[in-house]
Amino acid sequence: MFNFLPKEFNFFDLLEKQVGLAADAAKAFKEVVAKGAVSEENMKILQDIEHDGDDVTHTILEQLDKTFITPIDREDIHALAKELDDIIDMTCTIASRMKIYRVDHVDKYLVEFANIIEESVLGVTRAVKGMRNMKNVKQIYMACVEVNRLENVGDRLRDSALSDLFDNQKDPIEIIKWKEIYQEAETVLDICEDVTNVVESIVVKNA
Amino acid sequence: MFNFLPKEFNFFDLLEKQVGLAADAAKAFKEVVAKGAVSEENMKILQDIEHDGDDVTHTILEQLDKTFITPIDREDIHALAKELDDIIDMTCTIASRMKIYRVDHVDKYLVEFANIIEESVLGVTRAVKGMRNMKNVKQIYMACVEVNRLENVGDRLRDSALSDLFDNQKDPIEIIKWKEIYQEAETVLDICEDVTNVVESIVVKNA
Amino acid sequence: MFNFLPKEFNFFDLLEKQVGLAADAAKAFKEVVAKGAVSEENMKILQDIEHDGDDVTHTILEQLDKTFITPIDREDIHALAKELDDIIDMTCTIASRMKIYRVDHVDKYLVEFANIIEESVLGVTRAVKGMRNMKNVKQIYMACVEVNRLENVGDRLRDSALSDLFDNQKDPIEIIKWKEIYQEAETVLDICEDVTNVVESIVVKNA
Repeated sequence: MFNFLPKEFNFFDLLEKQVGLAADAAKAFKEVVAKGAVSEENMKILQDIEHDGDDVTHTILEQLDKTFITPIDREDIHALAKELDDIIDMTCTIASRMKIYRVDHVDKYLVEFANIIEESVLGVTRAVKGMRNMKNVKQIYMACVEVNRLENVGDRLRDSALSDLFDNQKDPIEIIKWKEIYQEAETVLDICEDVTNVVESIVVKNA
Repeated sequence: MFNFLPKEFNFFDLLEKQVGLAADAAKAFKEVVAKGAVSEENMKILQDIEHDGDDVTHTILEQLDKTFITPIDREDIHALAKELDDIIDMTCTIASRMKIYRVDHVDKYLVEFANIIEESVLGVTRAVKGMRNMKNVKQIYMACVEVNRLENVGDRLRDSALSDLFDNQKDPIEIIKWKEIYQEAETVLDICEDVTNVVESIVVKNA
Repeated sequence: MFNFLPKEFNFFDLLEKQVGLAADAAKAFKEVVAKGAVSEENMKILQDIEHDGDDVTHTILEQLDKTFITPIDREDIHALAKELDDIIDMTCTIASRMKIYRVDHVDKYLVEFANIIEESVLGVTRAVKGMRNMKNVKQIYMACVEVNRLENVGDRLRDSALSDLFDNQKDPIEIIKWKEIYQEAETVLDICEDVTNVVESIVVKNA
């Protein structure tokens, strides 16, 4: 499907690199949550991933601008590159906020969010990698359906977490902190779903 | 204007269906506000509307991807479908937050927001339905101007509501809850304006 | 580069007018911060700028819809016009919130943000004006790099400001107010970077 693209610019290699960085970020975040706090080392790892993600995004967008005709809609590649980068950035943002807010423990909701984020990024990985061969269409769809399902699970988890927070936490400053953390965690899952929406759109157009 | 489209895919029927769901959501939200609290039944109705909205959006986007040439810019239809869906989702989100925050009364600001949201969605309906016949151009513009006016009214209403909240409410947890509710209500009006901006753009291009 | 455009529609004049309004907004905001509070007169000036910005945006978008072929991608001009307008709107929003929250003093962080916003808008101005002549490509890139650098400075400034706020402010209502103000100030810098990303993309495509 990408046969007409200049050989030196392999979208797939770059998109797979980026989705690999998103998986690294999800894994690093899960380690943060397992420990219950963010160390300097955790932040360093996440910032390096964020930086690499920016570089890959920049390369994709620049190559895209230089390439006159692509068999895939230009704006779809653009959206994919940006949204994969957003997964990484938002995951780093949660860790950064936890550090700034001096969070030194986590609750069952955030543990569950870290698991779901990891699963969802795995689904995104299967969807993006699947595009190398459009014969994988069924596998791609199954990955997209799974990411969509996890987004719904995340919505309900955020609602449960917020209910519990507003019912039981009496310290308004703790409410401010945790409301933001839960909402950002759910946003990662929204972005994962945005990625698979673009993948689905590419698949339909090329079917 | 849509004569070249495949007969089996009638954008207008789908967009009108979606704008009808947005009107249903606005009406259901007005009932919530009239009662001053969100019942299980209210949430069920709103969630069903949200679900139907997702289905219609998905159908539009999928059909759009399958359709090679459309007389209207593809991205305009895409934006319309997404933003009409966003009206529905954001309206449901406000009700959901009211439930999670155990809101058991509403104030004059939210009553006014519910009225303005209903009016604005009516304006959006006139604008979207008007596109069936580009001879309606004057009516379409008048509807867009009205939606734009209501967005400005909403901005001032949100500012008044926030002023009153920060001047008079001493409980920070109540401030957190109501600040979010007011801002989300105003966001519904922003999205309505986004829809009419796209409609205006379609009309200008096809004039 | 814009030679094929209808003479009566000069994108550059309009984009430069808009970037001039963004600079006016940044200057007015700096004056607000220098005084430590928002007067009625400040709000009037900022609202007039916001209104003029809406008019210019509307003119650009309408002219764009009427113009069949442009040598620059239509969506790039569209994005530029919208994002320059967003710089203005977000700057006005900060002042408006300061007024609603009855802020009567500012801290070193907001003073620094006002400086960085002014510098960043200057960078945006150089980038946008540079597009009149693509021979300016090196200057354009340097301006984009500077705006990117300032966005990173702004990220760290927001993190420092939030750390200080959560470490030292015990009044949750003050935390709510200042958290929003800092995050909005950082968002202005994000939008400036978005503008220069579009400019870079235009330059690469036309290189």
